[in-house]
Amino acid sequence: MKLPSTFVIFFIFLFFLASPSYSVKKQYYPCKDFVFYFHDVLYNGKNAANATSAIVGAPQWGNGNLTVFADAFRFGYTAIFDDPITLDNNFHSTPVGRAQGMYFYDSKKIFNAWLGFSFVFNSTEHKGTINFIGADPTTEKSRDISVVGGTGDFFMHRGIATIMTDSYEDDVYFRLRVHVKFYECW
Amino acid sequence: MKLPSTFVIFFIFLFFLASPSYSVKKQYYPCKDFVFYFHDVLYNGKNAANATSAIVGAPQWGNGNLTVFADAFRFGYTAIFDDPITLDNNFHSTPVGRAQGMYFYDSKKIFNAWLGFSFVFNSTEHKGTINFIGADPTTEKSRDISVVGGTGDFFMHRGIATIMTDSYEDDVYFRLRVHVKFYECW
Amino acid sequence: MKLPSTFVIFFIFLFFLASPSYSVKKQYYPCKDFVFYFHDVLYNGKNAANATSAIVGAPQWGNGNLTVFADAFRFGYTAIFDDPITLDNNFHSTPVGRAQGMYFYDSKKIFNAWLGFSFVFNSTEHKGTINFIGADPTTEKSRDISVVGGTGDFFMHRGIATIMTDSYEDDVYFRLRVHVKFYECW
Repeated sequence: MKLPSTFVIFFIFLFFLASPSYSVKKQYYPCKDFVFYFHDVLYNGKNAANATSAIVGAPQWGNGNLTVFADAFRFGYTAIFDDPITLDNNFHSTPVGRAQGMYFYDSKKIFNAWLGFSFVFNSTEHKGTINFIGADPTTEKSRDISVVGGTGDFFMHRGIATIMTDSYEDDVYFRLRVHVKFYECW
Repeated sequence: MKLPSTFVIFFIFLFFLASPSYSVKKQYYPCKDFVFYFHDVLYNGKNAANATSAIVGAPQWGNGNLTVFADAFRFGYTAIFDDPITLDNNFHSTPVGRAQGMYFYDSKKIFNAWLGFSFVFNSTEHKGTINFIGADPTTEKSRDISVVGGTGDFFMHRGIATIMTDSYEDDVYFRLRVHVKFYECW
Repeated sequence: MKLPSTFVIFFIFLFFLASPSYSVKKQYYPCKDFVFYFHDVLYNGKNAANATSAIVGAPQWGNGNLTVFADAFRFGYTAIFDDPITLDNNFHSTPVGRAQGMYFYDSKKIFNAWLGFSFVFNSTEHKGTINFIGADPTTEKSRDISVVGGTGDFFMHRGIATIMTDSYEDDVYFRLRVHVKFYECW
């Protein structure tokens, strides 16, 4: 009775193939990845020398004051930044590049932001830029945004960046840990 | 005389190949596509509780008033939004996600906008984000923007979104129908 | 003694292959490329009729004045634009499309900008849009941004745009030369 049992195994195999619960997510591995930190010091009216970012837009209910947030979750407040990038989580480490772009808060109920920015490198280690956009629901421990393109060393690269808030202090300072994972390298 | 007629057919074929009028556009089919609606209720100074978006920037000629448009086509007016996404065109349907980002008007002569935003999903149906940018000439019935990346279920996806204004009411409400078509799936 | 010398050559070859200093950068060639110019006339309070762009956001230190820059490098000043695209560097040439989007200045120490915009074409030559984002360190002679997507004739295209400031006059006018290089065509 060799043949029938072979058939049974074959049909069990077919059953598994057809079962949606069996379908597994494809697992991709980055062709390159890097971890960076960037440090944002928001202008609050008193720290002009040290500030690396500033609010440049706010809703009507902010009454034109761009140094104090009119509401808890900062809906609509838009910041432009030029933040130092470091390889570790120390604000005083030598920067290896700049994170330049904008973020704005976009929820009335939680701390939610949206990001459009570039990493700009010009060192012996890295030359070129990486461009990012995406939603940043800051209350989640880790969140993913899109790496939509790159130039120089990162020519035409695409990928995902996993972002974590590494520190948050007094409404003025935050530090993001950015794990850049390229899945399309050239 | 079999051979000559074969040659004739071959030369006609060559002629067609060389003729630019014969060259046809390649036709691609999406590897995945979805239709969503999102609903924007703009803050006008009186609807704070219901508003899902707010103007946060305007040109000098707006004189700092962010609830009344100073000119017909709203050039420069920039809005931040957190809009509910639904599966049909009913504002009261249960949202399946949020459209979060910004739009601004960018023409002095017609209703023209530019969009940078994300769809954020966190349901049993979809988990992840889709990131969009592009020009939105709202006077055209349908217009295409770029799907520049995605995360989660939409990891590394790229495509096109075809946008139609499904409703427009009293300067305060609009509803967009978004046909997301992925041509690069992972 | 023919054979040994062949071996020697072979080992020298292996040595070069293994040497990191020998590894050369891959060279890619665009599948399509175009050169365009676009012309930005910034609103300064007096040129409403001719202006193609306007400042819509600025930091607190600008005191709400959006027609005069409060500091040398314009940190945080954000402009929305709808600029004519021409094929040559003549402002009076017939436009072949529009460059629509935003730029903002994002450095306190040099002239640095960030761009998010679209080229919109609707002529016999080109129909469709090209979408760009990236850092624009304007003090460098040429700089690269990402072409993150396209629609119409530029359906799903990706690439790099090399930007040069072709002219800069009196804080009000600048002209950018944009060499759009697609490396992914569909």
